[in-house]
Amino acid sequence: MTVIKRNNVRLMGNRTDPVLLFAHGFGCNQYMWDAVASAFSGNTYQILFDYVGSGQSDLRSYSFERYATLDGYAQDILEICEAIGVERDVIFIGHSVSCSIGVLAALARPNLFRDMIFLGPSPCFLNDPPHYFGGFERSDLEGLLALMNQNYVGWAEYLAPVVAGSGNDEQITGELSDSFCSTDPIIAQHFAKATFFADNREDFAKLTVPSLILQHQDDALAGVAVGEYLHKQLKNSQYKLLDVTGHAAHMSHPGLVVSAISEYFTERNIL
Amino acid sequence: MTVIKRNNVRLMGNRTDPVLLFAHGFGCNQYMWDAVASAFSGNTYQILFDYVGSGQSDLRSYSFERYATLDGYAQDILEICEAIGVERDVIFIGHSVSCSIGVLAALARPNLFRDMIFLGPSPCFLNDPPHYFGGFERSDLEGLLALMNQNYVGWAEYLAPVVAGSGNDEQITGELSDSFCSTDPIIAQHFAKATFFADNREDFAKLTVPSLILQHQDDALAGVAVGEYLHKQLKNSQYKLLDVTGHAAHMSHPGLVVSAISEYFTERNIL
Repeated sequence: MTVIKRNNVRLMGNRTDPVLLFAHGFGCNQYMWDAVASAFSGNTYQILFDYVGSGQSDLRSYSFERYATLDGYAQDILEICEAIGVERDVIFIGHSVSCSIGVLAALARPNLFRDMIFLGPSPCFLNDPPHYFGGFERSDLEGLLALMNQNYVGWAEYLAPVVAGSGNDEQITGELSDSFCSTDPIIAQHFAKATFFADNREDFAKLTVPSLILQHQDDALAGVAVGEYLHKQLKNSQYKLLDVTGHAAHMSHPGLVVSAISEYFTERNIL
Repeated sequence: MTVIKRNNVRLMGNRTDPVLLFAHGFGCNQYMWDAVASAFSGNTYQILFDYVGSGQSDLRSYSFERYATLDGYAQDILEICEAIGVERDVIFIGHSVSCSIGVLAALARPNLFRDMIFLGPSPCFLNDPPHYFGGFERSDLEGLLALMNQNYVGWAEYLAPVVAGSGNDEQITGELSDSFCSTDPIIAQHFAKATFFADNREDFAKLTVPSLILQHQDDALAGVAVGEYLHKQLKNSQYKLLDVTGHAAHMSHPGLVVSAISEYFTERNIL
């Protein structure tokens, strides 16, 4: 099994152009980036993939040990870059938990990323008063995991509209729900545990790669307080609040995401 | 150096869809297939690449020994499929000398290709009277090689309009000429020798993979007699004459090429 097949890697565009690597979130897949990615086709080289256990990746390559923490997912990213032969100056674009995964990859391979775009990042979902409010109590997250275990479809139908955001196109809720439901439930639970109980606050604080935080205005999973916290912690960050409800602006408001990234690219002389 | 980077491999579409592998001709590159490939985006998985020594491949990977014959180029195709993890049922779409290269790959790996599309194929450029007329005497081809050696740009400016076809969009002549000129002259000569003096008539005769021959009506490099010869030799071929002048219908008349391939795909239950 090659890494290219294992992670269902797609490569688009011209190799000599700036390299964008798009990383999807929990329960999602690479195709959810398509509306944003296609706006940058023509003058970028694009890498899209599914984490092992997600999307159309090879399930036989899944390991409960390797993917027990986000480091296993960061390893996927490093191995994909190695298989393609990109070694530096990649522009990382991640959604949700992939922001943390990207930071782990960046710390492991200091020159790999030139810039990082974080859409809806959260370094830690758990509250840690008095200084950090991730938005959830441990009992909330354990309740969600119990629901996943008891009634996987019910859980998917609860979470999909939360991620999509109320008032947005219902098609997005459907796409998310389909994606959740097409993920192996046991693997999804394992990924959910790794995601919900991760605490990567110190990792974000170590990052020196310039970054852009794209924060959803009204996001039940990663609220404004979390984005503002990260902006303070990160050494070279810019912060942009998107007037979006939900946790998936790349799907619900791709135009806003594209224009925020484009502005950043212009300022950073990337495009 | 990974194969993916070495051959500047692009992968597009959904891995579970029918797999199309596009192979470019001498002095050309993968982007010349874009107009045809894009017509099949959405419901196919597409593999595009540059042979080592062509396009944006890695020149450091070039070997005069390996690429002295077309077998070295066939090896590129086999290694690309291996790196991606596709093992069977690929639909091969080749232009010009890539048709012969594809046949060599097909004979080496019997289940790799499900169908083969040949645009402007020629199993042998040399005349071999009284039964075969490839279109060229040895002295013609040696003259072309001498011109390449003495005046590479002059050779490119001679050949580009011949391939593009008179009366077609001048932009295509320019694109071909640029591609010829951006190829390393020493490598181009070596590839030209391997192409001009190849005789793969017996290899085509051994092929059992179903195929479609797309023959240009007025082609100074691979004339109608060559296409008709191949159609007789091939075991499972269909033959379609395109009302096109030149040797590059995928560039000059992509719509005709797309519609011929689409008809074939429908008939063969591919799409």
